[in-house]
Amino acid sequence: MAKAKKQPRPKAVTPKGFRDYFGEEVTQRSHMLGQIADVYHHYGFDALESSAVETVDALGKFLPDVDRPNEGVFAWQEADENEGGDWMALRYDLTAPLARVYAQHRNDLPSPYRRYAMGPVWRNEKPGPGRYRQFYQCDADTVGTASMAADAEICMMLSDTLQRVGIPRGDYLVRVNNRKVLNGVLEAMGLAEDDPKRDDVLRTIDKFDKVGEAGVRQLLTKGRLDASGAFIDGVGLADSQADPVIAFLTSKAADVAGTIANLHNAVGDSKVGVEGIDELEQIGALLAAGGYGDDQVLIDPSIVRGLGYYTGPVFEAELTFEILDEKGHKRQFGSVSGGGRYDGLVKRFTGQEVPAVGVSIGVDRLLAALREKGRLAATPVGPVVVTVMDRARMADYQAMVAELRKAGIRAEVYLGNPKNFGNQLKYADKRNSPIAVIEGGEEKERGVVQIKDLILGAKIAESATLEEWKERPSQLEVARGDLVAKVHEILKSQEG
Amino acid sequence: MAKAKKQPRPKAVTPKGFRDYFGEEVTQRSHMLGQIADVYHHYGFDALESSAVETVDALGKFLPDVDRPNEGVFAWQEADENEGGDWMALRYDLTAPLARVYAQHRNDLPSPYRRYAMGPVWRNEKPGPGRYRQFYQCDADTVGTASMAADAEICMMLSDTLQRVGIPRGDYLVRVNNRKVLNGVLEAMGLAEDDPKRDDVLRTIDKFDKVGEAGVRQLLTKGRLDASGAFIDGVGLADSQADPVIAFLTSKAADVAGTIANLHNAVGDSKVGVEGIDELEQIGALLAAGGYGDDQVLIDPSIVRGLGYYTGPVFEAELTFEILDEKGHKRQFGSVSGGGRYDGLVKRFTGQEVPAVGVSIGVDRLLAALREKGRLAATPVGPVVVTVMDRARMADYQAMVAELRKAGIRAEVYLGNPKNFGNQLKYADKRNSPIAVIEGGEEKERGVVQIKDLILGAKIAESATLEEWKERPSQLEVARGDLVAKVHEILKSQEG
Repeated sequence: MAKAKKQPRPKAVTPKGFRDYFGEEVTQRSHMLGQIADVYHHYGFDALESSAVETVDALGKFLPDVDRPNEGVFAWQEADENEGGDWMALRYDLTAPLARVYAQHRNDLPSPYRRYAMGPVWRNEKPGPGRYRQFYQCDADTVGTASMAADAEICMMLSDTLQRVGIPRGDYLVRVNNRKVLNGVLEAMGLAEDDPKRDDVLRTIDKFDKVGEAGVRQLLTKGRLDASGAFIDGVGLADSQADPVIAFLTSKAADVAGTIANLHNAVGDSKVGVEGIDELEQIGALLAAGGYGDDQVLIDPSIVRGLGYYTGPVFEAELTFEILDEKGHKRQFGSVSGGGRYDGLVKRFTGQEVPAVGVSIGVDRLLAALREKGRLAATPVGPVVVTVMDRARMADYQAMVAELRKAGIRAEVYLGNPKNFGNQLKYADKRNSPIAVIEGGEEKERGVVQIKDLILGAKIAESATLEEWKERPSQLEVARGDLVAKVHEILKSQEG
Repeated sequence: MAKAKKQPRPKAVTPKGFRDYFGEEVTQRSHMLGQIADVYHHYGFDALESSAVETVDALGKFLPDVDRPNEGVFAWQEADENEGGDWMALRYDLTAPLARVYAQHRNDLPSPYRRYAMGPVWRNEKPGPGRYRQFYQCDADTVGTASMAADAEICMMLSDTLQRVGIPRGDYLVRVNNRKVLNGVLEAMGLAEDDPKRDDVLRTIDKFDKVGEAGVRQLLTKGRLDASGAFIDGVGLADSQADPVIAFLTSKAADVAGTIANLHNAVGDSKVGVEGIDELEQIGALLAAGGYGDDQVLIDPSIVRGLGYYTGPVFEAELTFEILDEKGHKRQFGSVSGGGRYDGLVKRFTGQEVPAVGVSIGVDRLLAALREKGRLAATPVGPVVVTVMDRARMADYQAMVAELRKAGIRAEVYLGNPKNFGNQLKYADKRNSPIAVIEGGEEKERGVVQIKDLILGAKIAESATLEEWKERPSQLEVARGDLVAKVHEILKSQEG
């Protein structure tokens, strides 16, 4: 028999496009998810956790965003005797699983069904900087009602949620638009429902942010030279056909009534357009009744992201403060959440149209924003470290740690090789320890322990004069029986 | 062109072996995970969240339990131009990813590294009743120390954790054994390290729970007739060789000193065996110093689960109270957590042996146990439901809901079709609502609202006499301005 070939060692690498989260990255996110769940729950939404795995069939192999490939999921075929096992995939969002769950359990669920869900989703896409193939979503949806009160409620809840996690009023804005109004615009342009130019118009509208009013007009008609000098073909519409689109995109006025009047100009007598405007008016009235100002939630038809996917009202939450990008340029932080009304998702399973409306919060982006603004709790304090001066007396040190823990103090004993005491202090430093406790043989005999204030010590080392150093020693000796009380006292003084 | 074939509707089903979790199932688990994280953090452990996906290479395609197939993971091949993409898989536990993370980041991590992790893991196995292909694990491990203080700490932490989540002292027991002692027993039996009979002995020991002392002796020697009448071949050892095994399995005495003495008899002068016993003694001393009684953590060599996987101390937490099984028979609830010391996992990547010790809690089993004992919070109260008597006055109802929410009361407006009022009360019932609020046109005119105490109403409907019903009406009228105060009052009375 040939000698078995030695296997090469596996590489210790995170798979491409994935990452690991350490310490406070994990706890800050889980804290934020808890805050969001609180608000959602308070609004009457119930938790749902479906499995990460769905049949490809149930997922429908389609992604909400138009410009993503159909193949953007991680999928595999189930093993089966006849090699005909089902294809399975990791969920790419939380909406497709909701549609499956609702279709499956609809007889047992309350109707309408308000549910929230939070967890990772997976996209089989080319990873890029800050763009991972696994990320968290945090969704709330109401399934089974066409009432605009559901849409208004989601907008209010989104506003409350942003304030709850630490984005104050004025630093965010929820904007509301309506796909039906856009359909009215398309009707007013004379484009029939099956006219392929509808898609061209949608794509052009998506560029409004970048190219502005004049650019959109050029792209809808004869075409446009872009900044690089390349000529972009136009859709070939008449100038008069471009008018309703421009009227729609620029309809935002000083107040809701003004915006509504402008929108009526854009859609003319299109039935669906008027219906959409009526829905926006209803949402506006409900928001006002709920006490929300238009500095919190605003009817704003210039928001066009997602209009291709949703079927009615569409909302997007933006953070309005500026941050510095990688190149040091100021820019707005941008979108952290989007949602809207959609049909057809449940219909895929049951054949019945079930109206639904929902919102999804990009938790990781929201955390990045708070971190950027310094609004996340500062680096949390590490554990008190009880050092080991005598390996044979581990039980003594363990007893100290147990006392500290019982008193509610995060604490641990040094578990590495205790020979080199410098390594123990380096370890305490790496752990962000506020305090090190030391009990050598001599201290043990005298019934005392040394307590080292590592935070004060670091401050003194940085800046203090010799006099200050003498006045405020960062290490002090206390009776063994006073250990817990003294540690408590120092921790308190460090908070100040 | 042929007419496109109509796609059949997808089936709305949870994939085989997976399940959905609704409402309190989700919130109770997340509450428990939070409690466990608190204890782990308090002990100085830091959070780690690695991705759900790993390369098959890094996972090592092996599962900790001996009797599981190597193929027990969900895996797929990455698309690649040359069809040679990496194989990826969902993690099957949280230990293999920890080994990868530690090997990858070891220069940046504190040493020793205490980390905790919680989240779903996936097993590609035949599902069974109560056995799912996705379930939660909740692990804590200390990597990079051979000190028994680490093992003792994990046992103490496990004990604290069980008490924290609601298993009182006396209702659980953490048992500690040591693989090295078993190795000593194998040496005392005269079986060399590469003797294939070692595995046979291990497998036989695993059956101790079922077949008892006499059964193990038969299986180790000449074989045994099992309950069904089938003859099970024996390992073929001499009776004298079985003696050390029996001595090991029955070594538990009234106190630690007695158990230790018995173990010495079992291993004789085997060096590794004596080392293992010494480790158990150290753990025993540290537990005593930490104030833990042997009704919490017990040195008990009859615990043999996992001995094949671990390389040093092994622990298992059992719930000791009885429950009724599906057939109504009383049985002990059994194991909810296991762990131990393991080597080699990091060595796979780096070539260096890194000692590590850890524990894993089966959160879903623990939840099931608490539910069984009625120790989980009762079905939580649903939201206050504001009913809709006049669809055109939705803004009025929304304003009431906003007031209630602002006062800290979970509340919602009915969003379904309001035509049939009975449906609204049925909905409130399905939501477990404590209170329904009603404001018809006549009430609106008079400036009042009706408040229906649904919990009192249900009680009255069940049992009250007519007199009681008259005395304690479950529906009362209050001025619109007193809505929030009255709802508060009723909610408080319902708590009592």
